[in-house]
Amino acid sequence: MFSTGHHRILSVLSRSGPQSRTDLARILDLSKASVTALVRELIERNILDERERVFGFGRPAVMLGLRRDAASFIGISLQSDPAHIVLTDPHGHVHARRTMPLLHDVEACIAAMAAGVRALIESASDGIGSVAGIGVVIAGIVAQDRQTCLVSATLGWHNVEIGRRLSELTGLPVFVENDANALIVGEQLFGNSGELRDFSLVFVSEGIGGAHIVNRQLHRGHHGGAGEMSHAPVAIDGEALPCRCGNRGCLETLAALPAIMGAARQAGLPDDIARVVEFAAEGQTQALTILHRAGTALGVALSQVIQFVDPERIVVMLDPDLVESVFARALRQAVEAHVLRRESYDTELVLLPLRPEDFASGAASLAAQHFLFGNAYL
Amino acid sequence: MFSTGHHRILSVLSRSGPQSRTDLARILDLSKASVTALVRELIERNILDERERVFGFGRPAVMLGLRRDAASFIGISLQSDPAHIVLTDPHGHVHARRTMPLLHDVEACIAAMAAGVRALIESASDGIGSVAGIGVVIAGIVAQDRQTCLVSATLGWHNVEIGRRLSELTGLPVFVENDANALIVGEQLFGNSGELRDFSLVFVSEGIGGAHIVNRQLHRGHHGGAGEMSHAPVAIDGEALPCRCGNRGCLETLAALPAIMGAARQAGLPDDIARVVEFAAEGQTQALTILHRAGTALGVALSQVIQFVDPERIVVMLDPDLVESVFARALRQAVEAHVLRRESYDTELVLLPLRPEDFASGAASLAAQHFLFGNAYL
Repeated sequence: MFSTGHHRILSVLSRSGPQSRTDLARILDLSKASVTALVRELIERNILDERERVFGFGRPAVMLGLRRDAASFIGISLQSDPAHIVLTDPHGHVHARRTMPLLHDVEACIAAMAAGVRALIESASDGIGSVAGIGVVIAGIVAQDRQTCLVSATLGWHNVEIGRRLSELTGLPVFVENDANALIVGEQLFGNSGELRDFSLVFVSEGIGGAHIVNRQLHRGHHGGAGEMSHAPVAIDGEALPCRCGNRGCLETLAALPAIMGAARQAGLPDDIARVVEFAAEGQTQALTILHRAGTALGVALSQVIQFVDPERIVVMLDPDLVESVFARALRQAVEAHVLRRESYDTELVLLPLRPEDFASGAASLAAQHFLFGNAYL
Repeated sequence: MFSTGHHRILSVLSRSGPQSRTDLARILDLSKASVTALVRELIERNILDERERVFGFGRPAVMLGLRRDAASFIGISLQSDPAHIVLTDPHGHVHARRTMPLLHDVEACIAAMAAGVRALIESASDGIGSVAGIGVVIAGIVAQDRQTCLVSATLGWHNVEIGRRLSELTGLPVFVENDANALIVGEQLFGNSGELRDFSLVFVSEGIGGAHIVNRQLHRGHHGGAGEMSHAPVAIDGEALPCRCGNRGCLETLAALPAIMGAARQAGLPDDIARVVEFAAEGQTQALTILHRAGTALGVALSQVIQFVDPERIVVMLDPDLVESVFARALRQAVEAHVLRRESYDTELVLLPLRPEDFASGAASLAAQHFLFGNAYL
């Protein structure tokens, strides 16, 4: 649909915001004439528009921006129950949303997704661009074709060609990804890390997942499994709880939400993460211990990510109540304590609240990325 | 010196061995005329030569190969004492070698390296190509400029501009790298993993180091520290020995050579790794326990590399006596036990003997890579 030249311009505008033709020529090492021709085509196709004029020396420069209605994208998260569906513009703003029950039956799930997509498009407000593609997120591993769910414990699926099937029903291109991979593409495209060459993302919910951007590209790994970390060994103070995987001392036995809430219930604390955080803030010993241990465990695992992969930043997405809690402080302390030769690493830790809709936004970013950049580097 | 087109041809010939002009055109998606012109220039410059003819349909195809005397490269390892210096050809064959004491004094070390380079070139046999560059390997972290040693505990160095200094003394380009990074570039260029898009390498000696090739390129990480793993937490059976870094349960407290030999001495076993392996092979319980525990610890750490990074292969370089020992078997079993969802990962483990000269060969491969490929993708 677009040439590589178009994609390169869209990539710069998406990453760095509005630019003048002169800036684009400099950044992309293209002639001013080439940029002018490519930009003209993108304006004619209603992808770019001219913005404010910036006055400096010489003629005022017209800034070019990506139109909000250039296209829109649908994201579906099958990461947890309920499933979320959103419709976003090229900047990641959500213009319509729905939820639906998470269906484990493959046929029923695919039919429900197709119906949800239709309903969402009908409900969307005027002034949005035509839908250019769909992203689907699962908790599990996705093949290199980005169409096939190889395995998902949450859904009980093995080798399900979910992408191709949904594409046949909707007539739209579909991109399937693992939950952490979708979140990191969303952070790169719609968030605040688009300028970074190498960064990682880790999220904490029912499980714990990770993903890496290496050299501006998603690092899926050879089998699509890069970033797995729920079962990293983090035994703390000799304590190594048995894990459902058969090993002991896995990260998720201490730091995933079910582990935190299980320990809280056992200690007679309320079954509510916000209340546990409150108790800890008030100095209640058991709440403090549970959150401190969980944050420390995640920090130990992150120190391994820092040393194995050495990203410029790790974005940690977690329950909104945890972002400012003792969990977060213990996490930062554990990273400090476990990264050796700290003079050589200064990986920035950015903690962000994780909301269920974020997986669906991440899913939409997969379709947006394909539409905007094709296979060009960001 | 070479154009991108030249570099791309050299990259294919280095990776896949001799090819015909027709094959090169197909692999590189270039016209036959372009390939013919580029090849002619490389033949005139004594980089390529014509080999045997391959008969098939139509005209016999002349195979083109990289000349053994196209250039030669010097590799210096300051990884351990003594320092090793080698001179290799573009295929990684060593044509001359020397050792020298490892000097911690920066000035003395740089002067000794320059003298060693001169002596090595003088001692080299006829029929080798002119020296195109020098690689230097340290145990530590090297800045993105590949000139400056940021920190090396072994050498006691901080911010030493070793590359630039040695380049001034020798008049040759110098590339400095971390030990594991040099080994993996050596494996990619001179070894058997050149065809792989994503692979990792881990070595075990005084310490334990790792490195990753991602998308055919060395992944140095944002601060040049990617691949660090000596201090990955691997506490086994609740046992977490204190480590010199201040933490407990670090990989090197169990699996590095000093840890293995320390445990052996404590158990009254001989101070000789070959003998310890022999004792274990004969069923001596303490030798078995020590090697089993060390191999298991490394296997647990490798299972994290597999899940974080998901390489196609991990090359494990270790003491020649360990390659076929219970250490190796325990390592493979621990990987089996600790990689979750094994149906989605089939990372190949290749165990190779590590010899001190390998670091120097790896160093030479840094210079060879720059000469042959410039900044072109392999």
